[in-house]
Parts: sequence; structure tokens; C-alpha cells
Amino acid sequence: MNRVIFQFFAVALLITSGGCGDKKVSNMNKEELENTIIAIEKAALEEWLKGNPDGYLSIYAEDFSYFDPIQRINGFQKIKEFYESMRGSVQVEKYEMIDPIVQVSGETVVLTYSLVTHSGGEVLGENCTEVYHQQPDKQWKIIHSHWSLSGTN
Amino acid sequence: MNRVIFQFFAVALLITSGGCGDKKVSNMNKEELENTIIAIEKAALEEWLKGNPDGYLSIYAEDFSYFDPIQRINGFQKIKEFYESMRGSVQVEKYEMIDPIVQVSGETVVLTYSLVTHSGGEVLGENCTEVYHQQPDKQWKIIHSHWSLSGTN
Repeated sequence: MNRVIFQFFAVALLITSGGCGDKKVSNMNKEELENTIIAIEKAALEEWLKGNPDGYLSIYAEDFSYFDPIQRINGFQKIKEFYESMRGSVQVEKYEMIDPIVQVSGETVVLTYSLVTHSGGEVLGENCTEVYHQQPDKQWKIIHSHWSLSGTN
Repeated sequence: MNRVIFQFFAVALLITSGGCGDKKVSNMNKEELENTIIAIEKAALEEWLKGNPDGYLSIYAEDFSYFDPIQRINGFQKIKEFYESMRGSVQVEKYEMIDPIVQVSGETVVLTYSLVTHSGGEVLGENCTEVYHQQPDKQWKIIHSHWSLSGTN
């Protein structure tokens, strides 16, 4: 792989994926649902950007699939191992979640946004897709994440 | 944006997204559904890799969102304009859809795969997420696509 691209990918990997609690939602209107999903994502993301993967790990489903610029990961156990290996390695000073869009289709919700992170003078732009699915216990969990570099880099 | 990355992104853009028919499915078991979704995707993809966007355009929902390495596009009309601008510009000699995985959650299906395309001696690796949602008329349409460069480049 081209070294310049690899370096970008390596930085992206440090900043990409993370923490939230046990938010439970069931019958709510679309606006409430949008706000709920974005709040769940932000809570996990903010933990991750401080190096703590527990938030994301608490909302990844057992049947989980994942892309980032370097790798493809399938299954909760594999993503857990990866995130544990990254624990403490991410330190982002500031982030912006740009134009989050929530598409609702029954018990499945697609959240898409662009992420800009600032870290040690570096600015990185990424695209993020999170597919949330409401579990039988009503908790929203992520069944698929796709992180990639955006054209703004 | 770094020129080397831009060149990769430009090539990726030429090869990424597009046509398929009116496959209608409703009650079927998971394996049938997996095969159906993969067949729908392959039909559209194969057309697109010959420069014809009609297949993908026929299965993109009105409420459609899209990421590729260069841009974010929201809404059917915008993606249509983009694809029309690319009509005839893609010519891929050979492709491999690697390890397609289908996750089913009610009327929504997440298809993920890696794509390798061969074009004029160039080989390009990409990651693809397609979120399909069954419409009221039972046709499966894509509500979200995320294309990105994979770490194999």
C-alpha cells in the first residue's frame, strides 16, 4: 500500500471508532428517536475520542460487522479484541459531528455523519455510517459500522 | 488534499457505484433472502462496471444517502445527477465480490462486501456497505450506500 495513504489510514485508525449506557427506547416519534440515536452515538464517540472503548463496546451487537480504512472485522469478539488493543491510544482535543442524518426503517436506523477531529495540530475528516437495530430488550445496538476517510483530507 | 490520495479517490470514484430490475420478494427464508439481495446487488454492480448507472438508479430509494471517498450525497435526485454525469466513464474488465455478508433485521438488510476491480492493469480494493429496505410494494431498494478505499490498495 502506498506509504502516504498508509500514514493517513494509520491516523484515521487512531481516531475512528467508542461509549454509552443502557438507553432504552421503544415507542417514540421520529424526532425523539433521531435525538436519542444521536445522543447514544455522541456518548460513545466522546469516550472513544478520549481513548475509552467501553461506550462503543456496550452498544455493539453480537452480530456486528465493521469496516475501517485498514481492515474488515466481523463479530463482537473480534471487535472487542481490536478495541482493547487500542485502549488509551486515542487522544482527540476537539471534534465536530457534521450534519448527522437519521433514516428510520422500522426497528432499524441508519445514522450517517461526517466527523472532523483535531489532534496535536492535525485535522482529520472521516465519513461514518452506523446501523442501529433495536434489540428485543429495546436497547439500540449497532449492527454495522463503516468508517472511512473523507475527501476533505 | 494530497495528490496521491486524490488520484486514488478519483479512480475509486470511477469504479464505485449503479442497475437492476424489479425483483420482488416478501416472505422467504434467510438463505433465499441473502441470495436475492446479493443477486440484486450483482446485477446493478455489473451494469455499473460497464458504465451503465440505470441498474443502481432503479434500486435507489427516494430517501437515499451516500458516501464515497470524495463526497457525500443525500437524496435520489442528487445521486441521479451524479450518476448521469458518470455514464459511460467506467470500464472494468474483471471484478471480485469478496465475502458478501447479509445481516437481516426485519424489513431492512445490511449487505457488506469488499470489491476488487481490475481495469487497464490497475487493481483497486474497496469496501462497500449497502442498506436495503423493503418498500411497501415489496421491492428491495437501497436507502444508504457507503463506498470507501480498502487497506489492500
